[in-house]
Amino acid sequence: MSPREYRELIRGGADLGLTSNVCGGYAQAQLDIVPKKYAFDYLLFCIRNPRPCPVLDVTDPGSPHPMRAAPQADLRTDLSQYNVYINGKIEAEPKDIKSYWSSDFVAFLIGCSLSIDWVLRTSDINFRTTGAYMTNIQCTPAGPFKGPLVVTCRLIKGKDVATTIRITSCYPTAHGAPIHVGNPAGIGIKDLYHPDMLKPSVPVTPKEADEIPLFWACGLTTRVVALEAKLPTMVTGAVGRLFVTDLPVEKLANQ
Amino acid sequence: MSPREYRELIRGGADLGLTSNVCGGYAQAQLDIVPKKYAFDYLLFCIRNPRPCPVLDVTDPGSPHPMRAAPQADLRTDLSQYNVYINGKIEAEPKDIKSYWSSDFVAFLIGCSLSIDWVLRTSDINFRTTGAYMTNIQCTPAGPFKGPLVVTCRLIKGKDVATTIRITSCYPTAHGAPIHVGNPAGIGIKDLYHPDMLKPSVPVTPKEADEIPLFWACGLTTRVVALEAKLPTMVTGAVGRLFVTDLPVEKLANQ
Repeated sequence: MSPREYRELIRGGADLGLTSNVCGGYAQAQLDIVPKKYAFDYLLFCIRNPRPCPVLDVTDPGSPHPMRAAPQADLRTDLSQYNVYINGKIEAEPKDIKSYWSSDFVAFLIGCSLSIDWVLRTSDINFRTTGAYMTNIQCTPAGPFKGPLVVTCRLIKGKDVATTIRITSCYPTAHGAPIHVGNPAGIGIKDLYHPDMLKPSVPVTPKEADEIPLFWACGLTTRVVALEAKLPTMVTGAVGRLFVTDLPVEKLANQ
Repeated sequence: MSPREYRELIRGGADLGLTSNVCGGYAQAQLDIVPKKYAFDYLLFCIRNPRPCPVLDVTDPGSPHPMRAAPQADLRTDLSQYNVYINGKIEAEPKDIKSYWSSDFVAFLIGCSLSIDWVLRTSDINFRTTGAYMTNIQCTPAGPFKGPLVVTCRLIKGKDVATTIRITSCYPTAHGAPIHVGNPAGIGIKDLYHPDMLKPSVPVTPKEADEIPLFWACGLTTRVVALEAKLPTMVTGAVGRLFVTDLPVEKLANQ
């Protein structure tokens, strides 16, 4: 199914569940919407922290159409579930946000770790994901946005570590190269098998002797930081329900 | 001389002229200052047009200190000449902007073509620069900012074209790879030997049979576009007088 067909089904009301296995090869993106008043500081936070927050697209204020990522899409309807936050607290989890939309909303599409999974899989690299973690690394703040870096972890075989780093380095909009290799405690992670977010449905078995944990900056960083800033209004896609763009992952190489 | 020493001399009132041959190996940056009201759209224009407008740093509103590029510098005093524009027209060309500074100013440091010259020279590639040109390529607009792409041109020997492209591709914050190779008319340039901007002091002799024109996106794009938008106030560095950062060019590879 093409991203356009997929989005049209969702727009029509279909619940197709999580997006982790749909439209393989097309970049997916985290949707974060903030009022125009906060858009400069949000964008500044992203460009000051490009590893967790690679910006795939930013809409014109009031426009729901991401002109670079998928010009025919409508960000008010093309995700299957949204979270609406008031002062940093969840207020509603609607299936569309037509009734919440405001002419001063600016929508940000942030690159997503699923694209890392895709480029590794197409490169025949076997790996296991363990979840996402808060670290002790502080992001560079911008206006009200500040907080710790969130990372994802993949267990990679020793023979594949160099290739994994080389390949992911080519995809800065998919978080690029790992920000840390090896010891989880080195970035403040106490227990690799109890992630803070994106917990796997089945517990991860202990790492084998030839597996090394590699940690990538994660787009959830902006989500955590933005919620912590307690904006009067903020809208996001629900966890695991990403926006499916028209951008082939390959096209993002070195962009 | 280190960038810090150089900036301190200027801050003390020394006029050291153009910056094209100072502090070799350190990235220089174009300074553009706009009021906070326009900062989101300006930044959006930059990230929508990353080839001409690679963002090296953005200050917090009201702060003259570029925390990434040179945290000890003061952007009000550390260039040897500035241009102050009112409604897009030049109003003053002061040696410092202490009396013009406003608490709602946001300063942008945009990557500079001099860094391309540097990486090519250190790679032993001989080339000739011919100037900067308006093209028929339109940038992606953002708010009031819209207009044509400005490019610089370098004449490169056929044997060096591939290496030149490979090397410059590694420096996206120095405008990355060329955006066009060969025929100037292909991007709307009528006369290679009469550039629109950055005219060389000595006319360039006609290109030799084994020279090919390579065209790079140029930071002057934002300057042209921002002036055309006729902001009530805008401050820039004077042409050829760039801000000398503390960032070694090599450190910007693949960033």
